[in-house]
Order: sequence, then C-alpha cells, then structure tokens
Amino acid sequence: MKYKFKNVLGTFILDEKLNIISNQDEEAENLPKEKIFQVLELFKDKKYFKQFYIANLKLTKQGIKDAVKEDQLIMQTISNVIELDKVNNIFTKRLREWYSLYLPELSKRVVKHEIFVELISKPKEELIKEFSVEQTMGADLDKFHIDEMKLLAEQIKDLNKLRETHEEYLRKIMEKYCPNLLELGGVTTAAKLIELAKGLRRLALLPSSTVQLLGAEKALFRHIKTGSRSPKHGVILHHPIVQNVPRRMKGKAARMLADKLSLCARLDFFKGEIKGNEYRKELEKALEDE
Amino acid sequence: MKYKFKNVLGTFILDEKLNIISNQDEEAENLPKEKIFQVLELFKDKKYFKQFYIANLKLTKQGIKDAVKEDQLIMQTISNVIELDKVNNIFTKRLREWYSLYLPELSKRVVKHEIFVELISKPKEELIKEFSVEQTMGADLDKFHIDEMKLLAEQIKDLNKLRETHEEYLRKIMEKYCPNLLELGGVTTAAKLIELAKGLRRLALLPSSTVQLLGAEKALFRHIKTGSRSPKHGVILHHPIVQNVPRRMKGKAARMLADKLSLCARLDFFKGEIKGNEYRKELEKALEDE
Repeated sequence: MKYKFKNVLGTFILDEKLNIISNQDEEAENLPKEKIFQVLELFKDKKYFKQFYIANLKLTKQGIKDAVKEDQLIMQTISNVIELDKVNNIFTKRLREWYSLYLPELSKRVVKHEIFVELISKPKEELIKEFSVEQTMGADLDKFHIDEMKLLAEQIKDLNKLRETHEEYLRKIMEKYCPNLLELGGVTTAAKLIELAKGLRRLALLPSSTVQLLGAEKALFRHIKTGSRSPKHGVILHHPIVQNVPRRMKGKAARMLADKLSLCARLDFFKGEIKGNEYRKELEKALEDE
Repeated sequence: MKYKFKNVLGTFILDEKLNIISNQDEEAENLPKEKIFQVLELFKDKKYFKQFYIANLKLTKQGIKDAVKEDQLIMQTISNVIELDKVNNIFTKRLREWYSLYLPELSKRVVKHEIFVELISKPKEELIKEFSVEQTMGADLDKFHIDEMKLLAEQIKDLNKLRETHEEYLRKIMEKYCPNLLELGGVTTAAKLIELAKGLRRLALLPSSTVQLLGAEKALFRHIKTGSRSPKHGVILHHPIVQNVPRRMKGKAARMLADKLSLCARLDFFKGEIKGNEYRKELEKALEDE
C-alpha cells in the first residue's frame, strides 16, 4: 500500500508507515485526509526549510507576474494622461508669458491653449494683421530668440499627441476589458474611475454612492471635518451627462449616472451582457423629461 | 519774440503773451524756465485731455516695448529649464513604475534616470541577460503594451534635448550680456541668480550676503520665524565650488563664492573688465589651501 502526497516541493510517495520513499510521481492512492497532519509533521525537518524557501519564492514571483492584469496597465496609462494634462497646462502658460515679450496682444485675444500654440508658428506681421493690433507693446526680437519659443511650442504639440495616443491605447484595452463602462463613461472618465477604485473588481463591489464621489475625497473629508457642504460629484463631473444639465440638477444627474456606471462595472467584471449604450439612452431620456 | 515748448503732444510755438500760435516745429527761442508753469496752465484746457491720453498710451506702450531686455529672456528660459527638470523627473518616475509591470528588476538595478530611459528600447531578453535576472517577476506583455511605454521614453528624451537647447541658448545670450557671471557661476546657476533677483541690475545692487541666500527664502523665513538654524546657501549650493568642499567648509565656500559672484554681477552690469576666470582660480586656490 502506497500513498501519494503533493506540496510546493513536488509529489512524494509514502509507504504504509508514512515514511517518504520517493519523490517521483508514480501510481499510488491519494493520502487520506485524516492522515495529512501526520505527514505534515515530517516536513518540519530542517532539511526541507531551504527547499521550501526557494519554492515559495518562485511561487510568489509567479503570483506577482500573474497579478498584472489590464487594471494595472489602465491605471498606469490614465495616471500618465492626468500628468500630461497638468504638464501641458504649465508649459502653455509659460509659453504665453514668454511669447508676450514679443507680442503680448496675442495671449489676451486667444483664450484656447491649443489654438495659441498653433498660432505661434506664424510670423508676427501676419498675426498683427489677423488680430488687428494697432500698436504692439512687444519688443522686436531676433529670429534667434523666437526660435527658442517655437521649440517649446513644438514640444507642447508632441505632448498633446502623446496624450491622444494614450487615449487610443486605453480605448483598445477597455473595449475588451470593460466595454460597458467604456461605452457609458467614455475613455477618460471610465479609466479614472478604475484608477481611483484601484481596479475593476473593487469598482464593481463599491456602492454607487461611493462611485459618485470617487475623486472628490478632499471635499468629502472637508465636509466630514468642518461640516461644509458635501460634494455632489467626483470625476464624473466632467461627463457630458452631468455637464449638460442645469446647475440645480447636477446632483441628481451625478447620482443617476453613478448608479448606471456602477451597474456597468458589475456587468463588465462578471462578464455580463452589453448594456452600456442602453443605459446611456435611458439616462438621457430621463434627464430630458425633467 | 517767439517761444518754443515741447511736451508729449509735440512741439508748440508761443507768442510773447504765451498764446499757442502753432504746433509746427520752427526756429524759436526755448521757453525760459520761470515761465513754464504759466504755459502748463494752458494745457489744463479739456480739449487736450484726449490727446494727452492717446499720447501717454503710446509712450507707455513704447516704454513697455523698450523694457524687454536680455533679463526677461533669461528669466523666461531659466524658468522653463527648472520646469523641464521637474517634469522629466515626474515622467521618468512614472515610466519606472509602468515598465516595472514588465521587468521590475531593471528599475532597481539602474539608478540613473537617463540610463534607465535609454535601456527601455532594448528587448526584454537582452536586458535579462545583461543584468543577470534569474526569474523575473514581470508579466509577459504584448508588444502593443510595451510600445506605449516606449513612446513615453521617447518623449522624455525629447524633453531632455529641449533642456540642452535652452542651456545652449542661455549661454549665447549670457556670453554677451554677463560674461563674468557666466564664467564664474556656470549657465544654470548664473541664470537662476538673475531670475531670483529679477534682473541683472538688482543682482548687481544686492549685498553679497543676500546673493548667498537667493533661493533659500523658505529656510530663511523659517529661521527668522522659529529660530531654526539659518541657511548657509541658496541656489549656489549646486555650484561645483560649494559641492566639492567638505561639509564643515560649505558655509565658508558659499560666502566666498557669493562674494565673487556679486562682484561679477557688478562688473557685468557696469560693463567692466573680464575677471570671471581669475576669480574662479582665486577661489579654487583659497579653498585648496585650507
């Protein structure tokens, strides 16, 4: 009568008296459950300790390796998108200040950052005509100085391009991984929600009232601490459904949207049907009827 | 007998009774000083007010235009260099975290940011060999995912290049504008000092003890407010002369360097001789002898 016993170190064959006779995998009966503690005692022998250490390290490394899912990739990418937004803002403000030494009137007349960065490449005379500047307060600077500003403008455009590429990349991952959340939330909002919840699993398990406030932690804790007004929305504030309703209805819209987003996250995590589009239409109709 | 009087509105010709008879520039005696107030009374007439407004606006605009000097250009550029340093640091940290999903061992073994960013372009197998990683904890990710990380790495390299170009540009301006300060302080430190003092003129007029602490305002005010230890150096801390002395001598080196930098700023502002190099050697010798 032989028994077979498996652990991290491999498969062991034991005789009737529970002595290890081999660590080859061969035909044998599985060890009955009631005898398992007796066998585990054997492995308290010090000679196994190092082997256990090595085997466990290997298992842990494999575990870490397997833990990298779409979640992690989405979280890294959206974090970089958020960073890119900040950096672009800083650089464009710097460019406005810098270029204002040359043609200060332009910065006042062009509010949109992107258009401003584009316009810089044009010659000064053209811009003066286009924006009918009477007498410019800007200095007459050599091309040598303007080129330096144009280099910064090019850099800003490149950063904007990188942001677009990141968004495309996110869309491709999320189309497979969380189609409902993507459909209803849009790329950035959906990715930010996953980032804030630290994964789709946790997002699916959160109550929708928490989803509504993800990203508004600062205001929430201020509310709890000082009794100031409670926040109505976190990152979902930037979602068109919340953006397009009048102010008095923002809270309600945020609540309804968070509700559906929460359902979407659950459908996606438990591999349910595709309902994102349906939910979106429902929401739009419900808010129109108000 | 005719008098001639000039103001912002132009040149006026007055008769003996001090009535304005023409505003053409023609041969006439200059108005005697004692009669000036009488003439100024004439211009209190409301009909001149609009003309004054327009003439003053024009003068002011011209004044602003003329106020753009090398100072402003240096200040804008060095501010952007400082910003670039921060941004590069943020992006490289993000890249390290992101790439660690793929090959976490690399980030630990390569401390230098620049080298890390360069290495990313190599294939994983090569890096595993090069750094003799036994069993990597990183996931096997598709090229599709890695490409996104590589794009970020490229962006970081471009930002580094822009920083270098800015530095070259600064050097070119400063070689003419403040050669002594440039020679002794080096591009970044000299430009930072000008930025902190808001111009070469003010830097030249500051006492050298203030120059020593430019950039250490936070620590200085903390010292004044709470009585903590006073700071020994501001941005000049990063200067090789201060960097290369042992810790106990840092304060002394900073004081001596600030002293000479202050002299350099004065030489440059008042267009004096070229002595930067001489000062540098003096300092190096004096600190070696200690």
